[in-house]
Amino acid sequence: MTYNYENLPQPLQSWTFQHPNQPPVPHPVWPYIAQAPWAQDLEHEFRERDQPLTFVLVHGSWADASFWSGIAAELRKKGHTVYVPEFPGHGADPNKAATHAMMTKSIADYVTSHNLKNIILVGHSFGGSLVQKVAEHIPDRLKRLVFMNAFVLKDGGSLADEFPPSMKAMFKQLVESSKDNTVLLPFPLFRESFANLASYAQAQQLYKKVTPEPAGPLFEKFDLKKFYSLQVPKSYVHLMEDTAIPLGSPDYGWHPHMSSRLGLYRFIQAHGDHMSTAQFEPKLIARKIYEASRD
Amino acid sequence: MTYNYENLPQPLQSWTFQHPNQPPVPHPVWPYIAQAPWAQDLEHEFRERDQPLTFVLVHGSWADASFWSGIAAELRKKGHTVYVPEFPGHGADPNKAATHAMMTKSIADYVTSHNLKNIILVGHSFGGSLVQKVAEHIPDRLKRLVFMNAFVLKDGGSLADEFPPSMKAMFKQLVESSKDNTVLLPFPLFRESFANLASYAQAQQLYKKVTPEPAGPLFEKFDLKKFYSLQVPKSYVHLMEDTAIPLGSPDYGWHPHMSSRLGLYRFIQAHGDHMSTAQFEPKLIARKIYEASRD
Amino acid sequence: MTYNYENLPQPLQSWTFQHPNQPPVPHPVWPYIAQAPWAQDLEHEFRERDQPLTFVLVHGSWADASFWSGIAAELRKKGHTVYVPEFPGHGADPNKAATHAMMTKSIADYVTSHNLKNIILVGHSFGGSLVQKVAEHIPDRLKRLVFMNAFVLKDGGSLADEFPPSMKAMFKQLVESSKDNTVLLPFPLFRESFANLASYAQAQQLYKKVTPEPAGPLFEKFDLKKFYSLQVPKSYVHLMEDTAIPLGSPDYGWHPHMSSRLGLYRFIQAHGDHMSTAQFEPKLIARKIYEASRD
Repeated sequence: MTYNYENLPQPLQSWTFQHPNQPPVPHPVWPYIAQAPWAQDLEHEFRERDQPLTFVLVHGSWADASFWSGIAAELRKKGHTVYVPEFPGHGADPNKAATHAMMTKSIADYVTSHNLKNIILVGHSFGGSLVQKVAEHIPDRLKRLVFMNAFVLKDGGSLADEFPPSMKAMFKQLVESSKDNTVLLPFPLFRESFANLASYAQAQQLYKKVTPEPAGPLFEKFDLKKFYSLQVPKSYVHLMEDTAIPLGSPDYGWHPHMSSRLGLYRFIQAHGDHMSTAQFEPKLIARKIYEASRD
Repeated sequence: MTYNYENLPQPLQSWTFQHPNQPPVPHPVWPYIAQAPWAQDLEHEFRERDQPLTFVLVHGSWADASFWSGIAAELRKKGHTVYVPEFPGHGADPNKAATHAMMTKSIADYVTSHNLKNIILVGHSFGGSLVQKVAEHIPDRLKRLVFMNAFVLKDGGSLADEFPPSMKAMFKQLVESSKDNTVLLPFPLFRESFANLASYAQAQQLYKKVTPEPAGPLFEKFDLKKFYSLQVPKSYVHLMEDTAIPLGSPDYGWHPHMSSRLGLYRFIQAHGDHMSTAQFEPKLIARKIYEASRD
Repeated sequence: MTYNYENLPQPLQSWTFQHPNQPPVPHPVWPYIAQAPWAQDLEHEFRERDQPLTFVLVHGSWADASFWSGIAAELRKKGHTVYVPEFPGHGADPNKAATHAMMTKSIADYVTSHNLKNIILVGHSFGGSLVQKVAEHIPDRLKRLVFMNAFVLKDGGSLADEFPPSMKAMFKQLVESSKDNTVLLPFPLFRESFANLASYAQAQQLYKKVTPEPAGPLFEKFDLKKFYSLQVPKSYVHLMEDTAIPLGSPDYGWHPHMSSRLGLYRFIQAHGDHMSTAQFEPKLIARKIYEASRD
C-alpha cells in the first residue's frame, strides 16, 4: 500500500485530544540537574540524570541477543534495567522451523514470568514485527514501544510485502538455494547493505556470527488489528544510512514509509547503518534509544 | 497540490540569468580572517568574522517573542542587529480574534516605523506565512527572506491546506473543544511532535509558555501573487527531526514540499526539532540562520 | 522515468547470490590495529590503518583537476595512490567543442597508458556520466566505482533528462545567451545552489575558477547497456545539502533517484554542498570517499 496520509492504519486523531484547561498530568519526579549554558552540545546530552527505565530489547534476523550487548552495557551504566530475551530459532536454539507466533509467545512469556512492568519494548529490524505482536499479548505491561529501523507492518501484511520486487525475488532465490527453508545473507550483500559504515575487518567480525534465518516468518501475513487499537506511546529511531531496505522511496523503507504507520510517534534520528553502528558505537545508539524512551 | 517541478509557483527561471562576461557584482568589503587549515571543522564555522546584518525575527504559533531570546542573544554577540517584534494575538496581546492581516500589518508597521532597511526577515513555522505577506508590504526594505521550518504557502492556499487529512481533522476537533475559536496543543502532542529531542523537564518548561492560538488565520486562504513575483533572495533552514508536520511525504512537510516553492533558494540544514532546539541550542541555530542570511 | 523499484536498470538480483556454505572469500590481509573502546567516535574513524588503494578522480562541470587537490592530498597522507586526470574541454584545454566521447576516451587512455590496475574510479557530478562510460572501456582495471553526488544516467538517457523542466529551460536560456554553445553559471545561482554552505568570500574564491562548460555533452543521449551489465562493486557518497539538482523529489535528484540505479551499492552520507565542501573540508570528504572505497 502506498504511503498516504488518507489511509494511515492509526490516524493521528485516534488519540483523544481535548482542549486542556489545566497543566499536563503531574509527572513522577526524578532528580535532575538543571541545564546550564555550558551543558549545551550538539548531541543533546544535557546534564540531566537519566530517568531510570526498564528496557526489553528484541533483536532482528541474522542476529542473537548479543546484538544488544554493547547497548545494554551502556544503558546499565546510566542506571537502567535491561532485559535481552533470546527467542526460538535464534541464539542457542537450533530450531529453524520456529514460527513467528512461537517467537512472540516466548518473549511475552519472558516478560510475564519475570513480572516486568512499565517496560520500554524495543525492536530492531525484524524485531519490530515481534514487538507489534508481543504488544498485543501484554499491553498492560508496556510503557512505550520503540522501533529502531524496524518493521512496522500494516494489518494483514507480511515482512516480504515491504521488500521491493527485486529484493523479494532475491530473497526467494536465497530461500530456494537453502536446504531447510532458511535465508543466509551472502557476505557481499551483508557488507554493502547491513554494515556499509564498517571497515572490512569489522564487517567480517560481525558476519562470523550470522547464521541462517528461518524463512517462514518473513512471508507470513499478520492480523494486527489489536496492535493498531493500542494507545501506548510509540517512538521511531531512524539511523540514516541504513540501506538494508532501499531508502528514500515513498513506497518502501524504514522512514517515513513504515514509521508513519505509528500515527503520533516521537522521532529520533542519528547517523548509522543497519547492523554495525549498534556494535561499534553502542554509546551513541544507547543515547538515542534513551531519548526515544524517556517520558 | 502535489509536489511537482512542472507547477512550481516560482520557477527557477524566474531569475533573469544572462551569460555573464564579467566577475560577480563587487561586494561591499567587510573584514575577515582568511581560512586557515586549522580553522576547518564539521560545523563550517570558518574563522571569518561575521558580516554584520540586521535581522527581524518572526515567531510562530503557540509562541511569543521570547521564542527568539537565546538566538537573538547569540546573533548580537556576533555583532548583528536584531529586532523581535511581537504581534496581535500573541505575547501580551490578549486578542484571540486577531486576524492574519492585523499581524502582518503590525510587523510591517514595526519595520517602517523603526525605518529598518536591508533587513533579513526570518520566519519560523506559522511565521513563514506572515513573512510572505509582510514581504508584499515592504519589498524595498528586504535584503533576504529566511524560512526556518516555516510555512511557504502557495498562492490561494491556507495553512490548513498543508495538514494531512488526519491532522486537519485533529485541529478541527481542538478548535471545536475550545470556547473562543482557538487551538491549544495537548501536552502529549507537543511533547512528541514539537519537542521530541528535549527531555521531559525541558518539554514541560517550554509547555508552560504555550497559550491558545487564534484559529482563524490557520484556515484563511491567501492571495500570494505579489509574493511570488518578488525577486528578493530566499533561504530555507531545515531542522531535520521536526515532525510538527509529518515529514518525508512528497505531498506534505517543510522540506522539500514547501521549501521548493521558493524556486531558487539557499538550503541550510541541521539537526533539530520544531520548538526545543531553538531554545536549548541557540548557538547552533543562530549559526545556521547566519549561514542562511549572509551574502 | 519515475523512480520505481519495478524498473531499476540494474536490479538487486543481478548479483549472483548463492547460499554460502563457507566463510567469505579470504581477503588479502593488511595490517590494522584492532578497534579499542576509546577508539569509538561519531565519525567512524576507527583506529585501523587505511587499506592502501589506487584512486582515479574525475571532476565535473565548471571545474578542473584542481577540484580534487585538497582531497587528493588528504588521501595521499593516508598512504593511497591518487591520479587526477584532466580531460578535453577543461583545465588547460581550450576546446569548448569537446565531446563526451573525447573525454571518456582521454580518461580511459590515461588509465591504460599508466597501466593502472585495480583502481577506485571516482566521479563527481557530471563526472559520474564519464565514469559510467570509462567503466565500459576498461572494466578489467576496475576495483570499484564511486559516485559522489554524481550523475548515474539511465540507459538511453542524457544529463538534461535529469533536470526538472524549469531547470532545463534555464540551461537552454544560458546556452542560447552564449556565443560558443557553452554554459556559464551565473554567480547568484552558483552561490545559492553550488556553494550554499560556503561564506561569500569562499564562494567568490571558487567562482573565480569557473569557466564556461561545453554544452554538447549535457544534451547527448548515452547507450549504457554495457555499463548496466558490469558486475563491478559500486558506492554512492551523498552530501546532504547539495541542491545543484533539486533534492527530495522522487523523480529527480542525486539520491535516491540516481543512486538507486546502481542496484546493490554501498551508501555513505555526510553533510556538504555541491562544490564548496570538497574544497574547504577535504579531510572529511577524503574520509567519506575512503569509506566508500575500502573492501
